Amino acid sequence: MSRCRRVLVVNGPNLDILGSREVDIYGSLTLSELEDLVRKRAAELGVEVEMFQSNHEGAIIDKLHQHASDAVIINPAAFTHYSYAIRDALAALDVPVIEVHLSNIHAREGFRSLSVTAPVVTGQICGLGWLGYLLALEAAVRIGGAKS
Amino acid sequence: MSRCRRVLVVNGPNLDILGSREVDIYGSLTLSELEDLVRKRAAELGVEVEMFQSNHEGAIIDKLHQHASDAVIINPAAFTHYSYAIRDALAALDVPVIEVHLSNIHAREGFRSLSVTAPVVTGQICGLGWLGYLLALEAAVRIGGAKS
Amino acid sequence: MSRCRRVLVVNGPNLDILGSREVDIYGSLTLSELEDLVRKRAAELGVEVEMFQSNHEGAIIDKLHQHASDAVIINPAAFTHYSYAIRDALAALDVPVIEVHLSNIHAREGFRSLSVTAPVVTGQICGLGWLGYLLALEAAVRIGGAKS
Amino acid sequence: MSRCRRVLVVNGPNLDILGSREVDIYGSLTLSELEDLVRKRAAELGVEVEMFQSNHEGAIIDKLHQHASDAVIINPAAFTHYSYAIRDALAALDVPVIEVHLSNIHAREGFRSLSVTAPVVTGQICGLGWLGYLLALEAAVRIGGAKS
Amino acid sequence: MSRCRRVLVVNGPNLDILGSREVDIYGSLTLSELEDLVRKRAAELGVEVEMFQSNHEGAIIDKLHQHASDAVIINPAAFTHYSYAIRDALAALDVPVIEVHLSNIHAREGFRSLSVTAPVVTGQICGLGWLGYLLALEAAVRIGGAKS
Amino acid sequence: MSRCRRVLVVNGPNLDILGSREVDIYGSLTLSELEDLVRKRAAELGVEVEMFQSNHEGAIIDKLHQHASDAVIINPAAFTHYSYAIRDALAALDVPVIEVHLSNIHAREGFRSLSVTAPVVTGQICGLGWLGYLLALEAAVRIGGAKS
Amino acid sequence: MSRCRRVLVVNGPNLDILGSREVDIYGSLTLSELEDLVRKRAAELGVEVEMFQSNHEGAIIDKLHQHASDAVIINPAAFTHYSYAIRDALAALDVPVIEVHLSNIHAREGFRSLSVTAPVVTGQICGLGWLGYLLALEAAVRIGGAKS
Amino acid sequence: MSRCRRVLVVNGPNLDILGSREVDIYGSLTLSELEDLVRKRAAELGVEVEMFQSNHEGAIIDKLHQHASDAVIINPAAFTHYSYAIRDALAALDVPVIEVHLSNIHAREGFRSLSVTAPVVTGQICGLGWLGYLLALEAAVRIGGAKS
Amino acid sequence: MSRCRRVLVVNGPNLDILGSREVDIYGSLTLSELEDLVRKRAAELGVEVEMFQSNHEGAIIDKLHQHASDAVIINPAAFTHYSYAIRDALAALDVPVIEVHLSNIHAREGFRSLSVTAPVVTGQICGLGWLGYLLALEAAVRIGGAKS
Amino acid sequence: MSRCRRVLVVNGPNLDILGSREVDIYGSLTLSELEDLVRKRAAELGVEVEMFQSNHEGAIIDKLHQHASDAVIINPAAFTHYSYAIRDALAALDVPVIEVHLSNIHAREGFRSLSVTAPVVTGQICGLGWLGYLLALEAAVRIGGAKS
Amino acid sequence: MSRCRRVLVVNGPNLDILGSREVDIYGSLTLSELEDLVRKRAAELGVEVEMFQSNHEGAIIDKLHQHASDAVIINPAAFTHYSYAIRDALAALDVPVIEVHLSNIHAREGFRSLSVTAPVVTGQICGLGWLGYLLALEAAVRIGGAKS
Amino acid sequence: MSRCRRVLVVNGPNLDILGSREVDIYGSLTLSELEDLVRKRAAELGVEVEMFQSNHEGAIIDKLHQHASDAVIINPAAFTHYSYAIRDALAALDVPVIEVHLSNIHAREGFRSLSVTAPVVTGQICGLGWLGYLLALEAAVRIGGAKS
Repeated sequence: MSRCRRVLVVNGPNLDILGSREVDIYGSLTLSELEDLVRKRAAELGVEVEMFQSNHEGAIIDKLHQHASDAVIINPAAFTHYSYAIRDALAALDVPVIEVHLSNIHAREGFRSLSVTAPVVTGQICGLGWLGYLLALEAAVRIGGAKS
Repeated sequence: MSRCRRVLVVNGPNLDILGSREVDIYGSLTLSELEDLVRKRAAELGVEVEMFQSNHEGAIIDKLHQHASDAVIINPAAFTHYSYAIRDALAALDVPVIEVHLSNIHAREGFRSLSVTAPVVTGQICGLGWLGYLLALEAAVRIGGAKS
Repeated sequence: MSRCRRVLVVNGPNLDILGSREVDIYGSLTLSELEDLVRKRAAELGVEVEMFQSNHEGAIIDKLHQHASDAVIINPAAFTHYSYAIRDALAALDVPVIEVHLSNIHAREGFRSLSVTAPVVTGQICGLGWLGYLLALEAAVRIGGAKS
Repeated sequence: MSRCRRVLVVNGPNLDILGSREVDIYGSLTLSELEDLVRKRAAELGVEVEMFQSNHEGAIIDKLHQHASDAVIINPAAFTHYSYAIRDALAALDVPVIEVHLSNIHAREGFRSLSVTAPVVTGQICGLGWLGYLLALEAAVRIGGAKS
Repeated sequence: MSRCRRVLVVNGPNLDILGSREVDIYGSLTLSELEDLVRKRAAELGVEVEMFQSNHEGAIIDKLHQHASDAVIINPAAFTHYSYAIRDALAALDVPVIEVHLSNIHAREGFRSLSVTAPVVTGQICGLGWLGYLLALEAAVRIGGAKS
Repeated sequence: MSRCRRVLVVNGPNLDILGSREVDIYGSLTLSELEDLVRKRAAELGVEVEMFQSNHEGAIIDKLHQHASDAVIINPAAFTHYSYAIRDALAALDVPVIEVHLSNIHAREGFRSLSVTAPVVTGQICGLGWLGYLLALEAAVRIGGAKS
Repeated sequence: MSRCRRVLVVNGPNLDILGSREVDIYGSLTLSELEDLVRKRAAELGVEVEMFQSNHEGAIIDKLHQHASDAVIINPAAFTHYSYAIRDALAALDVPVIEVHLSNIHAREGFRSLSVTAPVVTGQICGLGWLGYLLALEAAVRIGGAKS
Repeated sequence: MSRCRRVLVVNGPNLDILGSREVDIYGSLTLSELEDLVRKRAAELGVEVEMFQSNHEGAIIDKLHQHASDAVIINPAAFTHYSYAIRDALAALDVPVIEVHLSNIHAREGFRSLSVTAPVVTGQICGLGWLGYLLALEAAVRIGGAKS
Repeated sequence: MSRCRRVLVVNGPNLDILGSREVDIYGSLTLSELEDLVRKRAAELGVEVEMFQSNHEGAIIDKLHQHASDAVIINPAAFTHYSYAIRDALAALDVPVIEVHLSNIHAREGFRSLSVTAPVVTGQICGLGWLGYLLALEAAVRIGGAKS
Repeated sequence: MSRCRRVLVVNGPNLDILGSREVDIYGSLTLSELEDLVRKRAAELGVEVEMFQSNHEGAIIDKLHQHASDAVIINPAAFTHYSYAIRDALAALDVPVIEVHLSNIHAREGFRSLSVTAPVVTGQICGLGWLGYLLALEAAVRIGGAKS
Repeated sequence: MSRCRRVLVVNGPNLDILGSREVDIYGSLTLSELEDLVRKRAAELGVEVEMFQSNHEGAIIDKLHQHASDAVIINPAAFTHYSYAIRDALAALDVPVIEVHLSNIHAREGFRSLSVTAPVVTGQICGLGWLGYLLALEAAVRIGGAKS
Repeated sequence: MSRCRRVLVVNGPNLDILGSREVDIYGSLTLSELEDLVRKRAAELGVEVEMFQSNHEGAIIDKLHQHASDAVIINPAAFTHYSYAIRDALAALDVPVIEVHLSNIHAREGFRSLSVTAPVVTGQICGLGWLGYLLALEAAVRIGGAKS
C-alpha cells in the first residue's frame, strides 16, 4: 500500500453540472461536493488526490498524458461509449486505472451498456453513486503504483 | 408567445465553411448570410437570438451549460451521429430544443440517418435548407420558455 | 412564393381518431380541429388547401396519383414504417413533399424511428405537434411548384 | 362477468378461403363453419358476437374504429407480421384485445414468429386451431368491458 | 374428450414466490392459490391434475421424462428463453403440450419475446394471468391423449 | 400446352402511372400499351388473358381468390417487399405463378432485393422490361394448368 | 433483332452432372440434353450459340474475357453466391447478360437467395427449369448486341 | 449504516475450484481463503456474513428465495451470461444487490461482456480480484437494508 | 498410449431416454446399450471407463470437478448451445476433452450449429452415431494423460 | 463392413505445404507422411485408399464427380468456409462423406467456425490432428457403401 | 509533379506520445523523430511540409479548414473509427488526401478495421510504420495540387 | 536494403483486361503497361521482379507456394473479399507481403471494403492507382527478406 502516493481523478462531459442534471438518475450532490468527499477520504487514506473535469475529449487526453500519479480513477461519462481516443490514452498508461459510473449503465438506454474504455482498464465500478468513487479510491490505494 | 425572449442557435462542425463546402448538397449561402437571415426573422418575431458555431464538441457542451435562453435550436452537423456527450448536454436542458439539418439526412449515406441526439430533443426539421432554421425559430418562439 | 397555389395535405391511418387516441402522445386536438388550423393558416398565406385522410394505403396512393397541387404535406402515420408502395407514389411526384409527424418518432418504440418514405421526400418535420403542419405549410408555400 | 355483452371477432387476409387453403396447416374447417362454432359458444356464454373478415387492412382499421363491443378477438393473419397501422388501431382501443392464431406461428417460417401487434394486445393464443377462438371468447367474457 | 384423464402442470423458476414477486406484473395470487384454481377446474372437467414446480432445470426434465399424463401444461418461466434442454425434453413427449405465460411476454423486455420452447409445443397462451392456466386445461382436456 | 387456356396478369401499386413515373428506370411505355403487347402475344399463343391492376393490397388478394385462370403472372411492385398477405394468397393458389419485375430489383436500393413473395411462386423474371411479361406469358402457356 | 448473331451460354459448377444430381430439385434432363434444346431453339431464332461448362471459376472468367458474342446467358450455379471474381468479369462485358437458375433460388436454403452477380447483369430468370434457358435465349436475341 | 446487519454472499459455478483454475486469470487464492478475507472484513464492519457457493442454478435461486439478509453480494460466474432465472430471482429481492466479478469481464471473450443480471442489480464491481468482494461488502454495509 | 488408464464419459440432458426419443434422428439404441458398446471397446483398448449421465447442469459440473481420469469424453447434448458454466468447467480440466454428438449438429435447426463448449475442448466428433463414442474413446486412449 | 472397399481422401488448399506451414497449429508432419499413415491404416483395415490434394476448387469438384469409391473423407481446408460449389458436389454424392479438420476450427479465428460443407456431410471430426484421418477412415470402413 | 509545393501532415490523438506508447505495436520512434524523417524526405522531393498534431478533434478540423497546402497526409489515429466531423472536413477539401496508419489496422481489435474517413480520401496506406509516411509524401508530391 | 533481391508481384482475376474494363474506375493503363512501369522502377531500385497474373485462385496459391522471392506484392482483386484459401497461403509465407488495390476499396460497393487477406499481410496500399504498385515496390525493397 505504501507505493501509491498520488491519485488522479478524471470526470468527463456534463459532470460539471452534476446535481442539477437529471437528478433522479444522478442525485443532487454537486461535483464540488463529490470532490470534497473524495478529498476527505484521500486524506484518511494518506494519498494526494488531483481532481480534473472537462467537457473536452482532447483536454482529458492531454491530462492523461501529463499525469504524474500512481493510479487513475476515471468516469468518462458519455465518452465511455465512443471515445476510442481516450481508450488509447488509457491503454498507454503504466499505472492501474479504475473506471467509475455513478448510475448502473446496464439498467438504462441500450447504448450505455457498451463501454469502449472498459477493455483496457483494470477494473470497473458502477451503480453505487458517489460511494463508487470512494471504493475506487480505496482500490487505487491498494493496487496503485504498478499496472496490474 | 410572450414567454420566449431569447433563443440560442448552435451550429456544429464544418458549418463555418458553409457556402464553399459540397455546394450541391448544402447550397452556396455562407454561415454569416444564414445568420443574417435568422437574425432578421428573430427581429420580426420580437426575440433576441444568439448565434454560436464551433468545431469543438467540448465548446458546444460548455455553451449549452452556460446558456440563458428560452429555447435552443441546434444543428449538430456530424456530431449528430455519435456525440452522446452533446446528447447528454441537451437532455439536461430545461427549455425546448429543436434539431435542424440543412439537407435531408435520410437521403444520403446510411450513417447520416441515425441521430443520437434526436431522442432527447423536442422536435426535428430536416431537408428544408436555411428555411428550416426560420421555421425552427418560429416554433421556438411559440413553445419556448418551458420544456415540453 | 407566387408559384404555389394549391397544397394537398394527406393524413394516414388512425389520424381520424386523433384527440381520443393515446392523448398523452398525440394531444387532445381532433382531426377536424387540426384541419381548421391548417385551413386558417392557408387562408393567411393565400393558398388553397385540400385535406385528405384515409386508413387505406391504396386510397392514399390513388389520391397522390390524382392530385393537382403544387406541394404535398403528408403524415403517413404507421405507413411511414413499411409502406414502400406509398414511398414509390411519393417518389413519382414532381412537386415538393414534406413529411410531418405529430410526435417525435425518435423518442418512442424502436420501429418508429425508421421512415421508409423519408429518403424520397424533400424534408421532414417531427415532434412539434399541430405546429408542425403549419410550419410545413409555410415551407410548402415557399418551395412549392417545382420539386427541389 | 356481467360487464361483457358484445364481442367483436376480426379475421384478417386469406381467412375467407379457410378450409381450401393449405389444409395440412389450417385444417378443413371453413370460415363460416368456424363462425358457427364461435356463435354457438357465444350463445352458451350469453354474449353477442359480431364476426368480421376482410382482406383489406384499411377496412379492418375502419371496423376497429367503429366497434361498440366490450372485447375484441383478432386473428390478423399475415398482417400480424407488418401492419403497424392495425397495431396502432388496437393500441387505441379501450377494451381488452385477444390475438388468436390457428397454427403455432413459432413452428413455421421465421417471419411468422414476429407479431408486431402482440405488444399492444392483452393476450395471445396460438396453435390450438378453432379451439383457440372458443378459449379467446371465454377469456373475453371474463375480462371484457375494461382494458386490463 | 374421453381420452384425456391426467394432466401434468409444470411451473418453472421463481413461480414458487408468485404473489410476492413483482406484483404489478404477476398479480398477488400465490402459487398455491393458483394451484387450487387449477385443481377446482380440473375436477369440473373430470380430469386428474398433477402440479409440479421447481427452480431446477434438471428436475423439470426428470419430471417430464417420468410423467404418465395425457397432456402437459408448462410455464417454463425464465427457462423459456434459453433452456434448449427443456425444449428437447418437450419435443420427446408423445402427448400435447401447452405453454402458458401469466404476463404478455411480447410487451416486456426484448429477451422475453423469444421462446425457445414454443417451436416444439402444440400451442401457447400468454398475457391472460391465471385464466391462461384454466384455458390451457380446457384445451388439454379436448386434445389430450395423442400428440397433434 | 393445351391445358392452359386463361392467364391472369396482376399489376401492383403505381403501375397505373407507368410511362410517366421515373422513366429512366421503368421506361416510357404506359400500362395500357404494355397490356396491348401482352394481349397481342396472348392472341398469338392462343390463350385468353385478363389484366388487373390495383393500388389496393386487399383488392389484389380478393382478385387472386376469385380467379379462374390456369396460370397467374404477377408484378407485385412495392408489395413485393412486405406484403405477406399477398404471399399467403399466392401460396394458396393451385396453378403456377410467375413473378415479374420490369427493372432489375437487385441493382437498386437494398430493400428492393428482398422479395417476400418469391419463395412461394414457381419462377421469377426481372430486369427485362416489358419483354419479361411476354416471356412469363410464354412460360405460363407451357406450364399452366397445374402447379409445379 | 438483327444485331444479335452469337450467344454464349455458360454453365457453372456441378451442372455437368445434371440429370443425376438431386433429381427432385433439378430434374432428370442431362446437360447435353439441355444443350440440345438450346441449340434447337437457337436455330429457330437464327442465332449461333456456344455452350460452355466448367467447374473452375478461373476457366469461366477466362471464357468471358475471350468471348465474341452479342449476348451472354449464364447460370453461375453455386458461384452465384460468392464469386465476386465472376461478378467483376460480367460487369466488364459490353453486351447484355442474362442470369438463369433452374430452380427457384428463393425457395431453398437461405444462402441461395443471395446472388452476388445479379446486381451487374441485365436480367434474371429463375425457377422455370430448362424453359428458363429458352426464354433467356429469346430475350438475348431481342436485346443482344449492346449493353442495356 | 446501522440498518445493515446481515449480508449474503453467493458464488456461482466453478468458483469452488478457485485457486486451481486458470490461475493467470483468477489468481491462486482459494475459495476458502477468499471467504476468510470476506469474513474478517465483515467482522471489522460489524456485520454478519453468510457464504454460499453452488454449481447448481436452481440451488442458487432456492437460496435467494430463502435469504434473510439486508444485502446480497453475488458473483454469478458463468451464469452471468445466460441465467434469466437468476436474474428474475434477483429482481424479486427487496434488498440491494451488488454483482462482483474477479476478472475484468470486458477484457476477455466477447460473450463475457454481456451480463443478463446486471440490469436488475444495484451496482457492479469487476476486475479488482478479491478486493472487489471487500469493496462490495463495504458498499453493502452502507446501502443495505432497503433496495435503492 | 500407456499414459491413459481411465476415461470419464459424460452424457448430458435427455440422453437417458435415448432410444425412445426422436428415433429418426438419434436411432433406437438405448443409453445402456450405448454404454455397453463403450465399455466393451474400453476393455479391448485396456482402459477403465466411467459412465455418467445427468439432466442437471450442476451435477455435470460437480462430476467434472471430482473426476480422476486421464481423458474426458462429453456429449453435452442441449447444454452444448448455452452452458457457459460447463464450458468453464471443461476449460479448467488438465486432461484432453473430446466432444461428441450423435447427430450432425450442422444439419439441423440453426441453434444447434453453435457449440459454446467447442472452443475449449481438444476435438469434436459429430454425426457418426454411437460410432462417434468409440472413435472418441480410441482418440482418448492415444492422447489422454496430458492436455494437448 | 464388407461393403466398403475403396475410400477417396481429398485434401484442399495449402495442405500440400503441411509441415512447413504454421507448425504450431498444424504440426510438423508433412502431407506425404500423413498420407503414409493413412495408407498404412487402410491396409490394416483391408480397404484401398486414393489420396488427392489440390489447391484448385474446380479440380476437387472434378475429382468428386469422377470418384468410384465407397466413401469420401475430405478436409476442404479454407474452402470449408465459402465453397458452396464443393458443398453442392458433396451433396450430389451417394456415399458417406466425413469432413476432417486437423485443428479445432472452433478455437481459432471466428470465420473458421462456420463450415458451409458440414450441413451436407455425414459426420465431422476436428481438432485431433492426423489421428482424425485415421478415425475417419475407420468410420468410412464401417458405414461406407451407402449414404446414411 | 511541379504543381505540388506544400504538404500538410496531420497526426491525431496519442501520436504525441509515440515511442513510449505500446512500443510493440507502434515502435520506439518518437513523433519528433518521425517528423524529422518526413521533413528530410520532403526536402529531397522539393516540397515544403507542415507538421500538425493534436489530441483535439476540433483543432484538427480548424487546421484542415485553414490549410493552404496542395495535398494532405493524415493519420487520424483513434478518430479514424468514429469522427464523422473529421470525415466531413476531409470531404470538403479540394486537394488529394492520403490516410496513413502506422500499424496494420486490419490485424488488431475488430473496431480498428473500420475507417469512417477512408471513403472520402484519395488513398490509404497502413501497416508500414514510418515508411508509410514517406510513401504517402511521395504520392502527395505526384498527385498533389488537384483532387483526383 | 541489401537483403531484398527478388520481388514477386501477383495480380488476381480480371486484371488481365485492365485498361478496357470499367475505365472510369481503373484507368486506361493496360496490365502490360503497368508491368513495364513496375519493371522500370525495379531496375532503378536494383531488384529483380517477377510478374504473375491469373484468374485461377488455385494457380495463385500454387505460385505463392513455389515463389523464391524476398517479398510479395499482391493485388488479389475480387479474391480479396472471399478467398480464405489465398489468405492461408499468404499467412504461410515467411517474407513480407504488401497488398495493393488500384481503386479506393472503401469508396465503392459495401462488399469491397472487407479484405479477408488484409489481417495476414504486412501492409496495404489502396486508391493510388498504378502509383500504389511503385510505392509497394519501394516498401518491399526496404523491408523485404524477413517477415516483420
